[in-house]
Amino acid sequence: MSETKKTNIILFSGDYDKAMAAYIIANGAAAYDHEVTIFHTFWGLNALRKDEPIQLKKGLMEKMFGRMMPRGVNKMGISKMNFAGFGPKMIKDVMKKHNVMPLPDLISMAQEQEVNLVACTMTMDLLGLQKEELMDDIQYAGVAAYLADAEDGAVNLFI
Amino acid sequence: MSETKKTNIILFSGDYDKAMAAYIIANGAAAYDHEVTIFHTFWGLNALRKDEPIQLKKGLMEKMFGRMMPRGVNKMGISKMNFAGFGPKMIKDVMKKHNVMPLPDLISMAQEQEVNLVACTMTMDLLGLQKEELMDDIQYAGVAAYLADAEDGAVNLFI
Amino acid sequence: MSETKKTNIILFSGDYDKAMAAYIIANGAAAYDHEVTIFHTFWGLNALRKDEPIQLKKGLMEKMFGRMMPRGVNKMGISKMNFAGFGPKMIKDVMKKHNVMPLPDLISMAQEQEVNLVACTMTMDLLGLQKEELMDDIQYAGVAAYLADAEDGAVNLFI
Repeated sequence: MSETKKTNIILFSGDYDKAMAAYIIANGAAAYDHEVTIFHTFWGLNALRKDEPIQLKKGLMEKMFGRMMPRGVNKMGISKMNFAGFGPKMIKDVMKKHNVMPLPDLISMAQEQEVNLVACTMTMDLLGLQKEELMDDIQYAGVAAYLADAEDGAVNLFI
Repeated sequence: MSETKKTNIILFSGDYDKAMAAYIIANGAAAYDHEVTIFHTFWGLNALRKDEPIQLKKGLMEKMFGRMMPRGVNKMGISKMNFAGFGPKMIKDVMKKHNVMPLPDLISMAQEQEVNLVACTMTMDLLGLQKEELMDDIQYAGVAAYLADAEDGAVNLFI
Repeated sequence: MSETKKTNIILFSGDYDKAMAAYIIANGAAAYDHEVTIFHTFWGLNALRKDEPIQLKKGLMEKMFGRMMPRGVNKMGISKMNFAGFGPKMIKDVMKKHNVMPLPDLISMAQEQEVNLVACTMTMDLLGLQKEELMDDIQYAGVAAYLADAEDGAVNLFI
């Protein structure tokens, strides 16, 4: 029985460093021939946002959430030492110096390795995010689809 | 072999949004016929606190912790954008608009679906929380009981 | 088939309370005869730092990170209520009162129980941490080694 093993990551956090960790593990697991899924929910959806603002009809609440949340990975903060935006810039400078892949490259690599990038439709609705605002070639699903994958998962993580 | 699959969630966080995620996954897994346990530890215990203050004999430290920590889910903050209490109110307004169940309803649904709600006795002791302050019909256990469940778990998450 | 079960914990967080949770679970699992590994990455590496400053040749960035990050567990903050350093002192006082092991003792116990303490080499490089700054008798590995353990893990957690 040489079944493909599954790695399922829930990315709940909107922090740059936590998203990095999620994508580094995902890329590693894909290289290990796992079938890998990252299920983006709540603030983790911001990792899938397009950089440019999209004109859409939205209610006031959704507009406010949309403005307050980072548009794309380059606007995301980090979970520690995020004073005056100093932390994210510093960590990106250090990453460049040490040839560590920045988050957008980690996401591209995940797509090349056929990691399933899933956006949680329930929280998209909750935060007023629409498909036009998110990256192309991603999947849309809910908690039932996550559980169907996770119950057979070799590695399940909540990040 | 049609064994019941187990989902075991450690709820460590006291954030409203993370507790929501925990209970949404738990309810989904229960609907999927998993045997589900949420093990509430550290700040996650606040999700089990009763709304009303309870008069108990406590030491100074325990009194201070008791006052500083949110009493029940409606007082919990959210993990992001919690400026001046704006975040939690906003997310609750949006939830109501989108017919997403608020946390107290998610907890009631979990109880109806016979999700095991467990309070970690070691951290209750540490934070000076007593059984009278927590919801009725919950279970009390320690890390050994958690591990006995988790080692057979199909889905294990730390939230 | 009486195979040893594995518990694999990724400790990403640099919070005192989250590190406590990780080490309490690890010690419990070791007492349960699991083979246990804590993979320290990002801010979780701070749990492995020696208390005393070490003189090393470092670039400016690495020096700054080194100074900004807590040196050893006694300098770590907690994830909630960390105002003016009040939270960590308070929680340590309460721990002492309730005979809960402080983090350094939990780490020693883990070492006595032969829990594998692993430092993530990629993030060590990123944060400019060198082996001389970390505790003795730990292991060094990357994400591939983590995944090799985790894909057979009974309990996998990201903390």
